[in-house]
Amino acid sequence: MKKHFLFTPGPTPIPPEALLAMAAPIDYHRSAEAVVIIKDVLAKLKHVFQTRNDVLLLTSSGTGAMEGALANLLSSKDRVIVIRSGKFGERWGEICSAYGIEFEPIDLEWGDSVHPQAVADLLDKRPDTKAVLSTLCETSTGALHDVQQLAQITRDRPTLLFVDAVSALGADDLQMDNWGIDVVVSCSQKGLMTPPGLGFAALNNRAWEAVEQANLPRFYFDFRKARDAGLKGSTPYTPAITFIIALQHALNRICSEGIRDVITRHARLAEATRSAAKAIGLELLASNPANTLTSIRLPEKIDGKAFVEMMRKKHGVTYAGGQEKLSGKIIRIAHLGWMCEHDVIIAISALERGLAEIGYDVPLGAGVTAAQETLIKGHPTQ
Amino acid sequence: MKKHFLFTPGPTPIPPEALLAMAAPIDYHRSAEAVVIIKDVLAKLKHVFQTRNDVLLLTSSGTGAMEGALANLLSSKDRVIVIRSGKFGERWGEICSAYGIEFEPIDLEWGDSVHPQAVADLLDKRPDTKAVLSTLCETSTGALHDVQQLAQITRDRPTLLFVDAVSALGADDLQMDNWGIDVVVSCSQKGLMTPPGLGFAALNNRAWEAVEQANLPRFYFDFRKARDAGLKGSTPYTPAITFIIALQHALNRICSEGIRDVITRHARLAEATRSAAKAIGLELLASNPANTLTSIRLPEKIDGKAFVEMMRKKHGVTYAGGQEKLSGKIIRIAHLGWMCEHDVIIAISALERGLAEIGYDVPLGAGVTAAQETLIKGHPTQ
Repeated sequence: MKKHFLFTPGPTPIPPEALLAMAAPIDYHRSAEAVVIIKDVLAKLKHVFQTRNDVLLLTSSGTGAMEGALANLLSSKDRVIVIRSGKFGERWGEICSAYGIEFEPIDLEWGDSVHPQAVADLLDKRPDTKAVLSTLCETSTGALHDVQQLAQITRDRPTLLFVDAVSALGADDLQMDNWGIDVVVSCSQKGLMTPPGLGFAALNNRAWEAVEQANLPRFYFDFRKARDAGLKGSTPYTPAITFIIALQHALNRICSEGIRDVITRHARLAEATRSAAKAIGLELLASNPANTLTSIRLPEKIDGKAFVEMMRKKHGVTYAGGQEKLSGKIIRIAHLGWMCEHDVIIAISALERGLAEIGYDVPLGAGVTAAQETLIKGHPTQ
Repeated sequence: MKKHFLFTPGPTPIPPEALLAMAAPIDYHRSAEAVVIIKDVLAKLKHVFQTRNDVLLLTSSGTGAMEGALANLLSSKDRVIVIRSGKFGERWGEICSAYGIEFEPIDLEWGDSVHPQAVADLLDKRPDTKAVLSTLCETSTGALHDVQQLAQITRDRPTLLFVDAVSALGADDLQMDNWGIDVVVSCSQKGLMTPPGLGFAALNNRAWEAVEQANLPRFYFDFRKARDAGLKGSTPYTPAITFIIALQHALNRICSEGIRDVITRHARLAEATRSAAKAIGLELLASNPANTLTSIRLPEKIDGKAFVEMMRKKHGVTYAGGQEKLSGKIIRIAHLGWMCEHDVIIAISALERGLAEIGYDVPLGAGVTAAQETLIKGHPTQ
């Protein structure tokens, strides 16, 4: 009779109507009905991306959308800046290397966020830089980069801003049009509450101009074909229609709540989680934490990998552990997508319980109390 | 109370246990349980590919796997031969063009199959040809290419044979190891009875040697990373875990029936469909038809697009129409994946009915009778 709770920053829990839609007999992805669904999904994605630009639909994970952004916008002689403060910033650099794109890294401690001035200084030195590649929430650390400030720097220069919003879309604010972000990529299994398998990209006008000039090879991820097909409610190649149908249900929830309120809800759940962690006596990893997930440093004597496994096996609670250099040192608790206050209470109370069980001196109830106090403060939207 | 029947060559009907598995709450794709599932799926795919080589799992449609094969095995100066007898042979050429790979086409009428001797003659002239790119079943026409013969030509030369088995895997015979095929690519939504969203590739030893020498850019579709991760029951990037779980159920059916018997079943359903079409007085498109699907020429006075739409709307029966130059001229009836004799009877009887209703002089029952006669001939497996 154990219940399972999933707090990984992707996949995230999927609403029941989206799950059930996937169990329906499959239909042809080029039917008139599918065209209507794809058009509706693309329109609703614009609301989530806070943009009037076309959103492109790809059958891939978020990494495919990242590679697509590079392959569609850059040329072999281009030089870019890559902000690296965790595994996914590093991934931008790895994709550059695979395509022979020269890049200048801005390397930060894992958990830190970039100082926009550092980017401005680099661009002053190398004004021919074609693009700045950043994450919004660095999923491996839970740190938020201030892409609004970055866009203020890039929007008046001949430099494009690429934002990996893979985990943060629909959790942290991202006003693509208002802020002047050129390229946003994301995927289905985070704030969009759908299984992994769909990637998204949105480009503004000057990004599309770059696409026309770019010379790197691209076929499956050709953004021009995705845009042209999308306008007709179609895709260049057979799409994961099952997930598109599930996504429509998930987007109905987001559009019904409204993206501004969705983000406010995430901010609140994140704040409650952070206050709880501190009340338990634990330290946060990120200096500028995102709404997407909270990374919590574990006391040094705790084996983080074993702790995460024990919590899953014994308590049915799945946190994410640390990745690469943070392996075993942190836990990551997502409050992402289909999440409410009760989920935060479970995540926190289970954490207290688990720590107590392995002999860590934890004030039982302190985290839950702090979370409750944060949540009970009147917020207009809940 | 209308019932719907899907006869498109992808997606194909999905068995109920696979559908229902997708409605279960999603779990973390890096859990111990997911590792076991991925390993099991990869082992069972080897049975379907009739190979001891590793099968690679990609989150993409079949086109992504095709692009992956090119990007992982070829280098910028390579020259290849592309067999073009329909939309998907042409796609091999389009991917070559996107990557700047020079290719010699062998162009055939849509519906025809390649003469292996033509390939041998070309290779004699250009023995430095790096690869021959073929389809097994050309999905746009239903024609089968004799890749066993092609492999006899390539296996003793320094030329690799790439086979697009996107639609034919699990329907037409494909003995990767016995025949000596170097590269096979496929996907989930055809003979494997799973939604679109997973791509597969298998490479033999000399194909892997080519991977080590190749210099085209690749990241998301990097086959080396997919192989290394697969050995650990993992994937380089977040996979479409929902479809992997569904695929495990579908593969259980295939492995339980056995790939040899699965192919025999498809051969039988295809033969019945062809005999029915002829009995109705219709002509087949393909000179060497595949087990995968049957393409039937429509009488000239029939508007094929309108007919396919009418059959879907009025009778709940979805055939595929013709693509590109065959648009409006043919219907394609798949007998692919989770298909039994009764499905063929429905496909044929509905065709008779539909043709009669639009005034075509069809001998009602003739197609069904011919199909029955073919099916009733004793076959060892059913």
